[in-house]
Amino acid sequence: MYITSYENKLIKEIIKLREKKFRDLSNQFVIEGKKFVDEIPSSQKINKLIVSESFALAIKKNANVFILPDKLFSKISDTKSPQGIMAICEKKNFNLFDLPITNNSLIVAAENINDPGNLGTLIRSCAAFNADALLLSQNSVDLYNPKVLRACTGNIFKLNIATNLNFIDVLPKLKNKGFKIFASSGKASKNCFEINLKTKSVIVIGNEANGICENVLKLSDDLIKIPMANNVESLNISAAASILLYEAYLQRR
Amino acid sequence: MYITSYENKLIKEIIKLREKKFRDLSNQFVIEGKKFVDEIPSSQKINKLIVSESFALAIKKNANVFILPDKLFSKISDTKSPQGIMAICEKKNFNLFDLPITNNSLIVAAENINDPGNLGTLIRSCAAFNADALLLSQNSVDLYNPKVLRACTGNIFKLNIATNLNFIDVLPKLKNKGFKIFASSGKASKNCFEINLKTKSVIVIGNEANGICENVLKLSDDLIKIPMANNVESLNISAAASILLYEAYLQRR
Repeated sequence: MYITSYENKLIKEIIKLREKKFRDLSNQFVIEGKKFVDEIPSSQKINKLIVSESFALAIKKNANVFILPDKLFSKISDTKSPQGIMAICEKKNFNLFDLPITNNSLIVAAENINDPGNLGTLIRSCAAFNADALLLSQNSVDLYNPKVLRACTGNIFKLNIATNLNFIDVLPKLKNKGFKIFASSGKASKNCFEINLKTKSVIVIGNEANGICENVLKLSDDLIKIPMANNVESLNISAAASILLYEAYLQRR
Repeated sequence: MYITSYENKLIKEIIKLREKKFRDLSNQFVIEGKKFVDEIPSSQKINKLIVSESFALAIKKNANVFILPDKLFSKISDTKSPQGIMAICEKKNFNLFDLPITNNSLIVAAENINDPGNLGTLIRSCAAFNADALLLSQNSVDLYNPKVLRACTGNIFKLNIATNLNFIDVLPKLKNKGFKIFASSGKASKNCFEINLKTKSVIVIGNEANGICENVLKLSDDLIKIPMANNVESLNISAAASILLYEAYLQRR
C-alpha cells in the first residue's frame, strides 16, 4: 500500500503512538531502523511495516507493508537521518508467574526507574548477562518510550519484562518460591562478590534520586554494595545494575 | 546584587552558556542545584553564584552572589522544578602530561562518546573506581553540556579530565611512559578478568555505534572483552566501561 498524505490514518496512528496513553490503549508500539526490525523474532507480532520509497526495494519481512515517499517518512521518523523502515508491533504482556523457575533463576526488579536511557541500558545488560526476567514497578518510565527502545534495541525481544508491578505484593510471592531478595544499597555491609548469587536471586535496583523505598528494603534478605572510593556517593543505577549482573554471571559460569 | 530584568547582561550570559561555542569562548560553564554547588571544591573557581529570592537566605558559598526573583530564576533554569541555585564556574584545563604517574596509574580513554548521559555515567564510574584520568577524543560530546553535568554532578570535580585529544598522537606517548593499552572489544579473545590491570593501564572505550577506530585498535597491546550471552551483541558503552573499571578496582584492592 502506498501512502502520500500526511492526513492518512496510518500516519496519524504512528504519531499518536509517541504517547504512552495511545500505546496502552492500542496495545502497540513502534520500533525504527533496519537492524532493530531485523531483530524482531518470529514470535513477535508485527502489525504493520512502514518503509520509505527508497528503502522499499530491500524488504524481506513478512508483514503488512506500507510504502511512504522519503519526505513523508522523515516527517514521522523519530531520528534525524532515518534509515527508512519502522514497524508497529503488538505489545506482549508477560506474566511473571508464567516464568519457568529453575534452581538458579535470576530476576532483576527495578523500582521507579525514571530515565529512559537507564532503562534501555538495563534491558541490554539483563539480556547480556542472562537474567531470566526484569520486573518494573508502577511509576517506571514506559517500557515502550521511544528513547527506551532506542537504547535497548532488539534486546527488548530477548528478555521477559513484566511491567506495572507492586513490589510489596510481588516480592513476598517470589520469596515463597525460594528466591532470595538482594537490595542494592550503598549502606550495605557486604560487597556483591561476597554474596552467593548462584541460587534463585532477585536483585533490586532503586530509583535514580531516591534509591529503594523503605518498605521494599524491609522485604530484602540482604543488602549488597559495590565496593568503591569513599568520596563517591554512588554509581549511575544502570551502571550499578550492570556490575551486579556481571558479578552474578561470573559466579554462575 | 539584585536582578529583576530578563534583559539583564547576566541573564543573557547564562542563556548563552547553554551553547558549547560560548562556553569555549568564555572558558566557563554553569552548574545547577544545591548539592552540586555544595560539591564545588575550594580549588575550583566560581565566577558567579546565582540564587532565587527564596533560596537567598541559605547561602554559604563565598562568591559573587546575584539574587533573582523566583520567576526569573525558573526562566533560566535547566530543570522543571529548580532548587534556586546555580553557579558559573571557570573551566579548568587539565593537561594530561601534568598527571603524576605511579606504578599503577589507571587511565580511561573514551573515543567519540556521543551521548551526554553516557559521558556523565562514565565520569561517575571513573571517580568511583579511582581512575586517575579520563581522556576524551576530538568529536566527543562537550564535557560541559548541561546533560553531561546533570548525569555526573560533583564527580566532575573529582576527576582529571583531558579533552579534545588526538588518540593517535597521545596513546604512543603513554606507551612510552610504560602504559599498556587495553581496547574494549567484543572481538577480543581474552576476558577482562584474565588481564592484569594492576600495572599502568589505559582502558580504551569506543563510540556508541562504531566502536573503536582501526588506527586506535592497532595501538593497543591487548583487546579485552566482557563475557556475556552469545545472542547479545554488546553492552551500553558506559555500562561496559563501568564493569571494566570495577574489574580493575577489584584487582587493585
